[in-house]
Amino acid sequence: MQPTLRFSVQALNDYIVRFFTRLGVPPADAQTAARVILAADLRGVDSHGIIRLYSYYGSRLLNGTIDPQASIQVLRETPVSLALDGGNGLGQVVGEYAMRRCIEKARSNAMGMVTVRGSNHYGIAGYYAMLALEHNLIGISLTNSQPLVAPTYGRTRLLGTNPIAVAIPAGEHLPYVLDMATSIVPIGRIAVYEKMGKPVPLGWGLDQDGIATTDPHAIQNGGALFPLGGPAEMRGYKGYGLSLLVDLFCGVLAGAAIGPEVGDPSNKTPGANVGHFFAAIDISAFRDPLEFQQEMDRYIELLKNAPKAIGEERIYIHGEKEFETAQRNQREGIPLLPAVVDSLKEAGQLVGEPFDLQPVG
Amino acid sequence: MQPTLRFSVQALNDYIVRFFTRLGVPPADAQTAARVILAADLRGVDSHGIIRLYSYYGSRLLNGTIDPQASIQVLRETPVSLALDGGNGLGQVVGEYAMRRCIEKARSNAMGMVTVRGSNHYGIAGYYAMLALEHNLIGISLTNSQPLVAPTYGRTRLLGTNPIAVAIPAGEHLPYVLDMATSIVPIGRIAVYEKMGKPVPLGWGLDQDGIATTDPHAIQNGGALFPLGGPAEMRGYKGYGLSLLVDLFCGVLAGAAIGPEVGDPSNKTPGANVGHFFAAIDISAFRDPLEFQQEMDRYIELLKNAPKAIGEERIYIHGEKEFETAQRNQREGIPLLPAVVDSLKEAGQLVGEPFDLQPVG
Repeated sequence: MQPTLRFSVQALNDYIVRFFTRLGVPPADAQTAARVILAADLRGVDSHGIIRLYSYYGSRLLNGTIDPQASIQVLRETPVSLALDGGNGLGQVVGEYAMRRCIEKARSNAMGMVTVRGSNHYGIAGYYAMLALEHNLIGISLTNSQPLVAPTYGRTRLLGTNPIAVAIPAGEHLPYVLDMATSIVPIGRIAVYEKMGKPVPLGWGLDQDGIATTDPHAIQNGGALFPLGGPAEMRGYKGYGLSLLVDLFCGVLAGAAIGPEVGDPSNKTPGANVGHFFAAIDISAFRDPLEFQQEMDRYIELLKNAPKAIGEERIYIHGEKEFETAQRNQREGIPLLPAVVDSLKEAGQLVGEPFDLQPVG
Repeated sequence: MQPTLRFSVQALNDYIVRFFTRLGVPPADAQTAARVILAADLRGVDSHGIIRLYSYYGSRLLNGTIDPQASIQVLRETPVSLALDGGNGLGQVVGEYAMRRCIEKARSNAMGMVTVRGSNHYGIAGYYAMLALEHNLIGISLTNSQPLVAPTYGRTRLLGTNPIAVAIPAGEHLPYVLDMATSIVPIGRIAVYEKMGKPVPLGWGLDQDGIATTDPHAIQNGGALFPLGGPAEMRGYKGYGLSLLVDLFCGVLAGAAIGPEVGDPSNKTPGANVGHFFAAIDISAFRDPLEFQQEMDRYIELLKNAPKAIGEERIYIHGEKEFETAQRNQREGIPLLPAVVDSLKEAGQLVGEPFDLQPVG
C-alpha cells in the first residue's frame, strides 16, 4: 500500500468550503458541510470523509440531483418535537439544523426529537449525536441509507446499513460515543478483501442464493451483507431488527424513502429522499448531572480496569479510539492516500476549483 | 423430552394472583404481576414466565428481599419526563406504572420518558413497550440485568444481557415488536446444550481466559457470554456497545445499580436495585397517523414478499412468531413441562398456596 500524505485540517476545510461555494452552496452551509465531512476524516472514518466529496456531493450538485440552495420546511412542531423536510439539499445542512433545534428543545423542555425527510447522505451519524455533548445532553442520531443488507432468510438487498449513533457525556473521561452500522461490516470492507484476493470471514455476507459465503466477489455481485450477528444461528435477526428499527424511524416516521427505495448517493439519480431521526435528552430531568458524570466515570474505570482476555491489553469504551485518532490528525494533519489526492485533483478540475494543497507530512 | 401439559390462561392467572396475594402483595399489584408473567408464557418466552414465579419473585418476597407493599416515589418530573424509585418492590408493578405514566405524557405532550431505580426483575421488556400499541404510540422499554456478558477484549461478566424492546404499530398487519437481549443467546441456552452434551456454536460464549469456546461447561463455569456479534472480528463490540448503552440509560441515568453490581434475581440477596427506562412517542407529532400505518403495512409486505434464501420459506417481521404462539396458547392453554408443574407444586407448598390446577390438554 502506498504511504499516505498528510494535509492540514484548516487547509482542507477551506478547500471544501470553496468547492461547495463554487457549486452554488451558500457560504454558511458550505462551512457546515466541510465541518461534518472533516469530522469523519479526523476520527479515522475515511469512508465517510473527503473521499466522498465529489461522488456523494459534488457530482450531484453539478447535475442538479442535490439542490445547493434548498430551503428547509417545517412540517409539524410541538415544544419537544419537530418534523422537517430538507428540500433535497445537502444532508449535512439539514442534519446540523435539525440537531441544533433538537438541542434547543431539550435544553428548554427536557427532551427533543426531530425527523427529517427529503434529505441526502449526511456523513457520519456520530457527528450529530456529539453536538449534544457541548451542552451536556445525551444525543442520538439515526439515518437510513441505500439498500445493502438482506433480512434474515432473505437474499436480496432490502435494508441499509442504517447506523445508530448515541453520545453520552462523562466527567473526567471521554464521552461514550457509539456510532455503529447495523450491518457487520460496510460494503467497502468486502471490496477491500476482493482487491487483496482474500476470503472474508464467514458470516459477513451472503451470495445470490442467500447462503453465507467467504467469497467477496459473490457478496458484491448479486449478494448482500448480513445484518449485525450474521446468520440466524448467530442471531442475525437481531441486527435485522435494529436495521429495520432505524428505517421505521427515519423512513416511515419521518416520511422519507424506505428500504430498497432509498437512493444510492453514488448514483446520479434524483430524489434520494434519505430520512434522519435525531433526539436529545437533558440529564437533569432524571438525575443530578454531577452525580451522573461521576457515575459515568466510575463505570468507565470499572470496565477499563477489568481483566483482559489472554493476548489483549485494553478494553475500549466506544468512541475512544476515534478520539485518539482525531487528536493525532488534528496535530499532524489528515492522512490521504495518493489515489485520493489524485481523485480530488480530478474533481477540482470538473468543478472549476483546483485542488492545489501541499501535504504537510 | 417429556410432553408438555397445557393449562388454562385464566386459571394460571388466578393462581398467580392468589400466590402473590398470599405473600402480602396488594390484589391490584398481584394482578399486574400475573399479567406480565403470563405475557411471557403466552408469547413463548418461557424463560421469563411462570417458571420464575418462585425463584425470581416468591422466594424474595418470602425472605424480605423484595418488598410486597413498596411505595413508588417520584424523584423528578416534567411534562415529558419522570424519574421514579420503585422502593425495591416487584419490577412488574413499578414497570407497568412507569409505562402508563409515560404513555399519558406522550398522549398529552408528544412524548414521554421515564426512568426507574430501586426495582427488581420486571419480566419481558416487550410487555411494557407493547402497552403503547393500545394507544397507537411507539413504545420503548429497556432494563439492565445481572452480569453475564464480557465486554470486547475482556473475560469476566460485567454486563447484563440488557434487552432492548421497541413496539411500533402497523395498520392491517401485526405491529413490529423487537424484544431482544443484547447478548447472542441467554445463559439458559448454554445450559440446554450442556444438558444435551452438545457443543455450542463458536462465538456464543468465551472461557475463563476470554477465548471463544464451543464448550458449554467452560462458558458456564468461569466464562461469559459474548455480546451480539460475538468476537471482535464479527464486530461484537457493537453488541457490547448496545449492552452498555442500555445500562447507561437504566443504571447510570436512572440512578440504579450498574454492570456487575446489578443483583441476580435468583440470589436471595437484598437490594438488586435493577433499573429500567421507558419511552413513548406520539406518531402524530411527526406524521399523519393513517399515512404512517399505511406505510408500515407497505414496508411489511415489501419485506415479506421479497425473495427468500434457498431452503427458506418465510421472512419474518419482529414479534410475528410470538403473536402466533400467543394466539395458539390463548386458545389451547399454556404448555408447561411436568418438571415445571412439579416445581410450582413445591413452591405452592412453601408459600402456603397449593398449586392444584388440572391440565386442559
